[in-house]
Amino acid sequence: MRLIRDKLAGEVVGFGRDANRLRRCVELGAVHRVTTEITESAIDADLVIACTPVQEIVGHLVEASGKLSVNGLMTDVGSTKRTIVEAMSRTPAGRCFVGSHPLAGSDRSGVVNANPNLLIGKLVFLTPTAENRDEDIERLEGFWKSLGAETKKISPDDHDRIMSLTSHLPHAVAAMMASLTPHSLLDFVGTGWSDTTRIAGGDPVLWRQILEENREHVLQAMKSFATISHAWIEALEAGDFDQVEQLLKTGKDIRDAVGNRYTSD
Amino acid sequence: MRLIRDKLAGEVVGFGRDANRLRRCVELGAVHRVTTEITESAIDADLVIACTPVQEIVGHLVEASGKLSVNGLMTDVGSTKRTIVEAMSRTPAGRCFVGSHPLAGSDRSGVVNANPNLLIGKLVFLTPTAENRDEDIERLEGFWKSLGAETKKISPDDHDRIMSLTSHLPHAVAAMMASLTPHSLLDFVGTGWSDTTRIAGGDPVLWRQILEENREHVLQAMKSFATISHAWIEALEAGDFDQVEQLLKTGKDIRDAVGNRYTSD
Repeated sequence: MRLIRDKLAGEVVGFGRDANRLRRCVELGAVHRVTTEITESAIDADLVIACTPVQEIVGHLVEASGKLSVNGLMTDVGSTKRTIVEAMSRTPAGRCFVGSHPLAGSDRSGVVNANPNLLIGKLVFLTPTAENRDEDIERLEGFWKSLGAETKKISPDDHDRIMSLTSHLPHAVAAMMASLTPHSLLDFVGTGWSDTTRIAGGDPVLWRQILEENREHVLQAMKSFATISHAWIEALEAGDFDQVEQLLKTGKDIRDAVGNRYTSD
Repeated sequence: MRLIRDKLAGEVVGFGRDANRLRRCVELGAVHRVTTEITESAIDADLVIACTPVQEIVGHLVEASGKLSVNGLMTDVGSTKRTIVEAMSRTPAGRCFVGSHPLAGSDRSGVVNANPNLLIGKLVFLTPTAENRDEDIERLEGFWKSLGAETKKISPDDHDRIMSLTSHLPHAVAAMMASLTPHSLLDFVGTGWSDTTRIAGGDPVLWRQILEENREHVLQAMKSFATISHAWIEALEAGDFDQVEQLLKTGKDIRDAVGNRYTSD
């Protein structure tokens, strides 16, 4: 949408499976034209961006890779990076692929919720490998910056470890919290419960895949969470409310350091 | 603020300890006049509302009770009810006290964040006892309704059990989640983390008291949470991602049933 609005690309082609949804993409100005054939969408492309669920990205990119322009580049916006980068490295398409992950989005999906200004001021992780040419990495950085984002290069594994704590564990915890609340009590929840559980509204199939691709780091994060949760239970059982206050303070200090930089709207 | 704006009370008197803060209350139209003497604030009052941290409510109400008008009534807005109602029942002031808990508020405190429309469409729990006169209960219901709220009568213990799941556990979980995130990763959090942890920004002393007053129910809720968290860890360790998807779906179904009724703004 931003590419078209600001004339940053000659032609933006949308690939997808559902013709009705694709038509909406054209109507809403998100793409110039659409196709349900992935190879057709990639013909002479300078840049291919895979925005599918993480476990479908590699297959789609490999399929598209034969049709690119001579200096064509491919990236993705998947929430995990290690397994995708490793799989791409094992294919001939690996040297023209650089993984990306824009830290932007919401619990709402679909082109009707698209926002051309979504990336302004947001961070995009890039996970280049030794296979990638410097000029390709720079070109991709320039692409994200043209949409208003900042970029940061990081190893795929560091990326996945960070995300396990800042995104994947919070998602699982939100789902746990929601599933613990009986339907009969839903009239009595307020802003606190609603904020804490909001991301649990995300697509279970998308998130299943993210958690599967990042299984080890997520498990580690969950075990750390279980340890903290156990410390809380011990403090409550002992009636040690000085300790409870300390646990609350530690959380507040970290939450206050972030403040209202990010809002759900 | 609403009482004054809509002329619903002859005189609104603010009691507090900090003269500067009290002055702001007058300036912002939240009260007609202020005092730092609790007994003075209650002289001939038709209604006294204690809005202090939960462990200070009983002491303040007992102090104020001797000065009320003949049919004077007292209530509070504390987030817990059982210990407050029990303590008030043991005092002579018990028969003119009916506990309240408006399900409204935010992570922001202070009169500068006051909103005269805060209670519109919100639910206020009332926890009357056999000691209370029907006309007093009705009068208090009418008071909250005049501010735009709905009321629901409930036993103090049922109230506290509900709140342990819909409010107190989410608060503790938000604090756990925040405290698990190293400062070095705070540049990489997004809307998901921020929503999930927002309420952790609340006052640790206020929340320590809430958790202490509702210790048993909160402990029970935390143990249920630990059980669900354990099921997640087991599913991830077993690599059973059909089960992970099912856990995600259960959370999503419950979250979707609430939708966007409540926003953090």
